[in-house]
Amino acid sequence: MVGYAFMGAAHSHAWRTAPRFFDLPLAPRMTAIAGRDAERVAAAADKYGWESSETDWRRLVERDDIDLIDVCVPGNLHAEITIAALEAGKHVLCEKPLANSVEEAERMTAAAAAARERGVFAMCGFSYRRTPALSLAKRLVDSGALGPIRHVRAQYLQDWLTDENAPLTWRLDKSKSGSGSLGDIGAHVIDAAQWISGTNLTGVSALLETFVKERPVGGDFVGLGGHGGTDGPKGPVTVDDVAAFTARFEGGAVGVFEATRFALGRKNAMRLELNGTKASLAFDFEDMNALSFYDRADEPNAGFRRIQATEPEHPYTGNWWPVGHGLGYEHGFTHQVVDLVGSIAAGEQPEPSFEDALQVQRVLAAVEASAADESRWTAV
Amino acid sequence: MVGYAFMGAAHSHAWRTAPRFFDLPLAPRMTAIAGRDAERVAAAADKYGWESSETDWRRLVERDDIDLIDVCVPGNLHAEITIAALEAGKHVLCEKPLANSVEEAERMTAAAAAARERGVFAMCGFSYRRTPALSLAKRLVDSGALGPIRHVRAQYLQDWLTDENAPLTWRLDKSKSGSGSLGDIGAHVIDAAQWISGTNLTGVSALLETFVKERPVGGDFVGLGGHGGTDGPKGPVTVDDVAAFTARFEGGAVGVFEATRFALGRKNAMRLELNGTKASLAFDFEDMNALSFYDRADEPNAGFRRIQATEPEHPYTGNWWPVGHGLGYEHGFTHQVVDLVGSIAAGEQPEPSFEDALQVQRVLAAVEASAADESRWTAV
Amino acid sequence: MVGYAFMGAAHSHAWRTAPRFFDLPLAPRMTAIAGRDAERVAAAADKYGWESSETDWRRLVERDDIDLIDVCVPGNLHAEITIAALEAGKHVLCEKPLANSVEEAERMTAAAAAARERGVFAMCGFSYRRTPALSLAKRLVDSGALGPIRHVRAQYLQDWLTDENAPLTWRLDKSKSGSGSLGDIGAHVIDAAQWISGTNLTGVSALLETFVKERPVGGDFVGLGGHGGTDGPKGPVTVDDVAAFTARFEGGAVGVFEATRFALGRKNAMRLELNGTKASLAFDFEDMNALSFYDRADEPNAGFRRIQATEPEHPYTGNWWPVGHGLGYEHGFTHQVVDLVGSIAAGEQPEPSFEDALQVQRVLAAVEASAADESRWTAV
Amino acid sequence: MVGYAFMGAAHSHAWRTAPRFFDLPLAPRMTAIAGRDAERVAAAADKYGWESSETDWRRLVERDDIDLIDVCVPGNLHAEITIAALEAGKHVLCEKPLANSVEEAERMTAAAAAARERGVFAMCGFSYRRTPALSLAKRLVDSGALGPIRHVRAQYLQDWLTDENAPLTWRLDKSKSGSGSLGDIGAHVIDAAQWISGTNLTGVSALLETFVKERPVGGDFVGLGGHGGTDGPKGPVTVDDVAAFTARFEGGAVGVFEATRFALGRKNAMRLELNGTKASLAFDFEDMNALSFYDRADEPNAGFRRIQATEPEHPYTGNWWPVGHGLGYEHGFTHQVVDLVGSIAAGEQPEPSFEDALQVQRVLAAVEASAADESRWTAV
Repeated sequence: MVGYAFMGAAHSHAWRTAPRFFDLPLAPRMTAIAGRDAERVAAAADKYGWESSETDWRRLVERDDIDLIDVCVPGNLHAEITIAALEAGKHVLCEKPLANSVEEAERMTAAAAAARERGVFAMCGFSYRRTPALSLAKRLVDSGALGPIRHVRAQYLQDWLTDENAPLTWRLDKSKSGSGSLGDIGAHVIDAAQWISGTNLTGVSALLETFVKERPVGGDFVGLGGHGGTDGPKGPVTVDDVAAFTARFEGGAVGVFEATRFALGRKNAMRLELNGTKASLAFDFEDMNALSFYDRADEPNAGFRRIQATEPEHPYTGNWWPVGHGLGYEHGFTHQVVDLVGSIAAGEQPEPSFEDALQVQRVLAAVEASAADESRWTAV
Repeated sequence: MVGYAFMGAAHSHAWRTAPRFFDLPLAPRMTAIAGRDAERVAAAADKYGWESSETDWRRLVERDDIDLIDVCVPGNLHAEITIAALEAGKHVLCEKPLANSVEEAERMTAAAAAARERGVFAMCGFSYRRTPALSLAKRLVDSGALGPIRHVRAQYLQDWLTDENAPLTWRLDKSKSGSGSLGDIGAHVIDAAQWISGTNLTGVSALLETFVKERPVGGDFVGLGGHGGTDGPKGPVTVDDVAAFTARFEGGAVGVFEATRFALGRKNAMRLELNGTKASLAFDFEDMNALSFYDRADEPNAGFRRIQATEPEHPYTGNWWPVGHGLGYEHGFTHQVVDLVGSIAAGEQPEPSFEDALQVQRVLAAVEASAADESRWTAV
Repeated sequence: MVGYAFMGAAHSHAWRTAPRFFDLPLAPRMTAIAGRDAERVAAAADKYGWESSETDWRRLVERDDIDLIDVCVPGNLHAEITIAALEAGKHVLCEKPLANSVEEAERMTAAAAAARERGVFAMCGFSYRRTPALSLAKRLVDSGALGPIRHVRAQYLQDWLTDENAPLTWRLDKSKSGSGSLGDIGAHVIDAAQWISGTNLTGVSALLETFVKERPVGGDFVGLGGHGGTDGPKGPVTVDDVAAFTARFEGGAVGVFEATRFALGRKNAMRLELNGTKASLAFDFEDMNALSFYDRADEPNAGFRRIQATEPEHPYTGNWWPVGHGLGYEHGFTHQVVDLVGSIAAGEQPEPSFEDALQVQRVLAAVEASAADESRWTAV
Repeated sequence: MVGYAFMGAAHSHAWRTAPRFFDLPLAPRMTAIAGRDAERVAAAADKYGWESSETDWRRLVERDDIDLIDVCVPGNLHAEITIAALEAGKHVLCEKPLANSVEEAERMTAAAAAARERGVFAMCGFSYRRTPALSLAKRLVDSGALGPIRHVRAQYLQDWLTDENAPLTWRLDKSKSGSGSLGDIGAHVIDAAQWISGTNLTGVSALLETFVKERPVGGDFVGLGGHGGTDGPKGPVTVDDVAAFTARFEGGAVGVFEATRFALGRKNAMRLELNGTKASLAFDFEDMNALSFYDRADEPNAGFRRIQATEPEHPYTGNWWPVGHGLGYEHGFTHQVVDLVGSIAAGEQPEPSFEDALQVQRVLAAVEASAADESRWTAV
């Protein structure tokens, strides 16, 4: 694994935990973790349960005892690492967004396609797909329960930048993160909307805004944000604070998307609603173990059902606890490992593929292009 | 009063009920109701409690025993009736949207301004303003509780057109209604967003869509929709089924708006959320007696409070029932009458004025212009 | 009508409004209202729309132009007035609880039975039965949707006595009110539980408690409570502050009941939940337009549906507004008038009858007896 | 560890995971797991990450390389194992309920007290205490935020026995489980109510009921329940299906408790509500990452706040994910390990102690005694 911050902790937990609750066809070994600082990466290896550590990710690519590389670093490093890994015959799990540009994403996707020919697979880490309630949503749509979809409503609302004094982090630096709310959290709902609806976006009309143009360099980092100093130096915020766009889908549905880190009071409101002609679905990650489902067949006594997606029949949940005993954020990562290992063992392409992630990247680019052109309609 | 359908019933109830629960400075008399069909308007007069009926609205304008005319007919008739009434020295309460075009709305507003000089007042019936929870929202914003507003999220979601076979009604005929979801329900959230935030929209980027292009002429009308015949003639739907747009406000806030009658499962989800730097507010008419409020000062133990807007200190509610004993949809109309009568007695302009309603009309026009021009950014 | 306080206002509104929204087989006239204070009752007549006023309820019984007497006074006066009215051939609508003792209730019920022989009817005002969501609950149970009922969970939680300094009112004086939370609000959920389940309670084990033994005499009355003086005289609270009991129903269901006015934050949480073997129902008056319904047939994708009880097919709601446009507290009273007038016109016994109300009274008595006897099981 | 079923999996996960997210003062080694079936316990050791396995728990007590024994077997075995372990100088973590009788619990508590003198500690596994939202509830009560507590409302509602054909399991066999809903799930809310309120129950009036007297022996076991055969042999259910009781607390609060596995639609509704004179708290495990909090100081704009108990300032959550990224059921067990290891390292008694658990056991006994004596009030 490359990287040992927030995503590094989540991925490590997933690799440790997956074989404890699921019968995996292959037994993953947590061979090595890489990071630039020798001392810190060694500490991370010990803490997270990796057998060894490296200070250069290239060493992971070179080592023969490594079959898969899990890339958990900022987006500006994705292309170089994943392409090298795939070319070296290592399977790859790469965090989202796939890259910081369509051009990079295309090169990565080409590398993945070439590797696939050799039985080497690449997967992109849109982990929310494996939240059981969202997996159930996908299953319901695929079953035809919703009928043709008219509306997609997608929001990802957080509030950790509301404080004008929250410090600059790599997430606010375009050279590292590629974009702001758009790529960090918007990408999740774009992927989820396309995946669950089974249709891609065909065009967008977008608006981007940066409310706070500069922020303190350094300060007290807490969670993703924190409290910057009030009298120290400031640096420029080079990414969007909010992305809002309307969209159309292949099947004719109308979409409304919003991603922001200024929605005071919304902590992790990754929300999706689909209105079909036969049924509707709604989800909010702040109540992550539940899926709301409205079935027109229930009328006149219909209403959104709060399905607790914890039944043994539901995706993944039968391997955990009895019904009603909720799962947490990290379980999506564990399920991602389960499916990735299963696909590799079966010689099948795991999902989401780099092609899927490239499509998301194209949407991100269309959003930026539209926003830069008076919100004019822009094809994806 | 002119008109005796859905809005006619609601307004009549308001005129009958207002003096029973509030001490009004003037005692309204329900003198006459007008409609084209003599028999049906006479029946409506009897049912709704009007002393007499007329088959021509011009008679109301002429009668000396009438001081105020309440206009509850489709939008295409608003300009002619209200202007005649105002010129005849009658106060006017006119249903929303104010008109079917900016040009009409401007003429009406000019007539209202001229009448005001003579102590005659005009008000537009955006009745949701008087839902206690929304009145409380306005009060909280005005008190400065939210600080500068970053986000406005406004939706008006209904589902009564989901059925492709729901019949054609005047609401689907552009010549009568002016527009579809946009003017019928979108206008409500545009007005509410501007009024509560205290700032106007400055520009929009919009998308309109008509999912079902033609519908049965006639059928079984139920509520606003119903079930059309499956083998009879069909006629064209000439209005939008959905309106979606991004927006900017004077104060720098970013807005996302959506109005639709295809959101299966959402019956009357007139929703508004404002995120300020100090507090946030959220409202959904499907839980109309509650206002959600998040106060950053409560952190780290903050959360959206579900305020039941039924306290004696809350707007209007002290005149009704003990706390927790909710009010219904029609109370907004009753409160509208209370405030209108109070303003007339005090010789003051009631709110929303025609100027306020004209501003909403300009937003509607900008939305249509943007949608017709590849969603390009369009100033209001 | 006798009485013009909280219930007087609600009942007057109902009499005025019922014929405006429903086609009644008889046209009620609001002939006269009675109260002891001549000036105040005359003002109430004017405010509430009664044609005349009387200072002695006996005058209503004597007047020939009165066919029905609506009794909205404290419980200690119910027996005398209703029996006199029934014997004089007047139909009676009597507020709940029916009486302050089983003995009074039995005499009233006997009078009602005798009157019924002469075509004169008595009804008890458990108005919550006509909240559309609860009427729908009854309909669902009657349809067999729930199967045998295992559990009944009934709460009526308010908080207006939390403040130790809230003033003494007649509701805290046993000689007037009969009991405290038990009869005032507990009676509502006892009636609702028996009516909706279709089974009576057979026994109880109860606990009563008075948290605050004395309160200020006088003060600033607001809603049902208010703020008493802090240094003036105090008087004894002679009723229960809370009633809690377990129960068994005829059909084998186990019940848990609680009524209190000290549940800080719960304003009018009149709640009922029934768990059957096939489906479950839950209701909370603080979200009064919705009924929660869980259908085992939906498993494994089952969940409590939030049914907005505002469909044209639902009880009463088709006469009001489009779906999703909620009703308020007072609509239950209006529907009560509608059904009462309909029953009288049809020569049928309206529900709830005095027999039904007597059964509630027997439960109240059993609760008090059990609480006085170490919570020992007490048959109803 | 002894036992490898549901609780065994949860505890193993906790031991594996605690050091990965928390800095523990001692490094736990997962030395050995014991179970009667050699093959299955060896498989469990491998699956759950234990270094070795034993077929007799006594071997764990004898082994020198074991410092702590975690007891995850049915209640009938608790006394023997824990007493032997404590006498052998092993720290003990024992699942709840502590025992199947007060007599056993007293002997265990005496053994724990004696062991404590020698620096050896015993803890009982009421793991819900370490659900962050409930830990936060405790912190709020301890801070005085609620003021004197008037009401405790505690429910534990599940539905996995609703199906009359669900098979017999050890949880329905009194000789193994001690009691039914009462000890299995009621014990959790009794402990939580006493712990969070900071006061013990002083007396109860109770009702127990077994709805389904016999069930199929064997069948298809799923989760805690499943589907028994319809024509095979049946065996007697020897425990309660539901326990309901009223209660009083030391501080004067009135409690209402209910535990059942027949509340159709309620999957794991472990609920607690406390009403103080200054604030109220409410929790439902089906929305386990949130705590509802009502603060009277917020009036008249007060309402239950939905606090997402995921802030860095909240108990335990700072070691996991950013705010709003929820935790799951098993995190309570991990936190339990964290605190247990911390207490052992510090030489302090971990909580809940066996004394705390004995108090719960006394409540269980009082409930059974009252239910057997016509629900008569019974001191704890």
